[in-house]
Amino acid sequence: MCDFTNYLLQKQPLIARGLSIETSGLPESIRPVARHVLESGGKRLRPALVMLFAEALGCVGPEVVPLACALELLHSATLLHDDIMDHAGLRRGRPTAHRIFGVTGTVLAGDALLALANMVVARYADVRLSQCLAEATMRTAYGQMLEIENTGNTEQSFEEYLAIIEGKTAWMIRASCLMGAMFAGAADTQAAAAAEYGAALGVAFQMVDDALDFSASKDTGKPVGGDLREYKCTLPLFLYLQTIGEPERLKLRDKFKNRKLTEEDIAFLTTRICELGIDAQVRNIAVTYLDKALQSIEAYPQSAAKNALCDAAHFIRRRNM
Amino acid sequence: MCDFTNYLLQKQPLIARGLSIETSGLPESIRPVARHVLESGGKRLRPALVMLFAEALGCVGPEVVPLACALELLHSATLLHDDIMDHAGLRRGRPTAHRIFGVTGTVLAGDALLALANMVVARYADVRLSQCLAEATMRTAYGQMLEIENTGNTEQSFEEYLAIIEGKTAWMIRASCLMGAMFAGAADTQAAAAAEYGAALGVAFQMVDDALDFSASKDTGKPVGGDLREYKCTLPLFLYLQTIGEPERLKLRDKFKNRKLTEEDIAFLTTRICELGIDAQVRNIAVTYLDKALQSIEAYPQSAAKNALCDAAHFIRRRNM
Repeated sequence: MCDFTNYLLQKQPLIARGLSIETSGLPESIRPVARHVLESGGKRLRPALVMLFAEALGCVGPEVVPLACALELLHSATLLHDDIMDHAGLRRGRPTAHRIFGVTGTVLAGDALLALANMVVARYADVRLSQCLAEATMRTAYGQMLEIENTGNTEQSFEEYLAIIEGKTAWMIRASCLMGAMFAGAADTQAAAAAEYGAALGVAFQMVDDALDFSASKDTGKPVGGDLREYKCTLPLFLYLQTIGEPERLKLRDKFKNRKLTEEDIAFLTTRICELGIDAQVRNIAVTYLDKALQSIEAYPQSAAKNALCDAAHFIRRRNM
Repeated sequence: MCDFTNYLLQKQPLIARGLSIETSGLPESIRPVARHVLESGGKRLRPALVMLFAEALGCVGPEVVPLACALELLHSATLLHDDIMDHAGLRRGRPTAHRIFGVTGTVLAGDALLALANMVVARYADVRLSQCLAEATMRTAYGQMLEIENTGNTEQSFEEYLAIIEGKTAWMIRASCLMGAMFAGAADTQAAAAAEYGAALGVAFQMVDDALDFSASKDTGKPVGGDLREYKCTLPLFLYLQTIGEPERLKLRDKFKNRKLTEEDIAFLTTRICELGIDAQVRNIAVTYLDKALQSIEAYPQSAAKNALCDAAHFIRRRNM
């Protein structure tokens, strides 16, 4: 086993069963909302990372499955709240939960999934795991908040962009890796390595996601240029702004500030960013983070799980949906 | 010390300092929203109950303060989300957070406060405390969901009403009492007694709240008849429906179902419910729960804290804002 995609596919039934068990205790009125977001075709990246780090450190039993599911529950909770805030109508090509169940039911279902994630983790009676989950929740909210504060701000620095994606995406992926390692009784250096791997992988994952927003096929279920429509200044736009002159930059700054992008502007920007090869450039920057991730776990003992973790980096590099 | 109001007043600076310490680590962008809800003049009922149960079982040191604050953080998180869902414009006479900071910032601040509560509790390294907090979060969300599902339903039974208020209000008050007792190393029967006390007190607290909605002075900062305006069928309305004939009941049922109450209807109903003495009737039902609460802790050793817990029941009976 060294192919990450195969690993994901192989573990999906196990994770699906775990999620079904954990959510069966949810109040009846919350279950349909939970099921809607949990069954929307996610890759189960976070649970897979929990399980892979546990396996890489010698824990291969089924005891890790609920822990892995807790990370997917947390992730789903943030998706529910996130889609409300973004006023998103579609996720992975399907109507978002709040379009079907209303804002109220969706806020509450998000809270319930958050609580469920905490309950599942508390069962492990390891306070470090509970702390890790809570910190990831907090950091994710912080990253989302930062992103909102910087909406429309084309003068956002690379460091600001990085802080946003570290918060909204990387921290939870970091927590997945770290919690898997902790579960397996990792030594301090091994746990630190897992955290480092996850943080770097998470940043790369979001960078590729941001590149895909300009170049994706319709497989993602998201329209191209979605981030522009929400006036999010992601890395592709940041790099594009370095290629143009002052007058054009000022014009774009004002259009972002005043939320005045037209459909023509969006079509022009998405085409131009691809023509300039900026999406490839973004992927190259992501690769530097993937290399960092690979380095972090170099000292891990050889195993099929370690191979799969290495392949996860390649999986993200190749990612096209 | 046997007066609960004095206890609340005396502990408020300590709790305020604790909350200020815990929230100082919140991301800058979230702090103003957190401060807005935390400094809106709450009674700090939940933290006081945590501290009183700890004291009643012999723990008088300051170590309990963060735990007490965690319950106020959880409560505040639910208030933030709740006001969004209710589209409430005012809380305790001040504009609600989402009116000032927007829905997005308020959803995220709620998530962050939830996470913070979990982080604070995890510091105690007692998995039962973490479980208790998570279960309270879940049950609260469930109660709110039930309430929403029953909006406009005048045929709601007393049992359904009870399930709603047990969830949305009593469970967190129960958790406050239970966690204070657990912190103090309560024996199983003492812990069960604390839980029973809190559950009964919480039900009574919400019943009095629902009575106040029909009869309150403007000190509460809420307009009289607020629940009618939201088509919530609380206990006063339930009792009123028993006093009228079938034709009037059907007319009301349809007005609720079709959200067609006029200002005249609301004025008539609030006046009539008070004229019939129904608010006093509701308080009498609440008293049966308060008696249950008092009975639960009868076996607790005599102490000033126990006296204050007994007075808490009287405090709720007398409550007029």
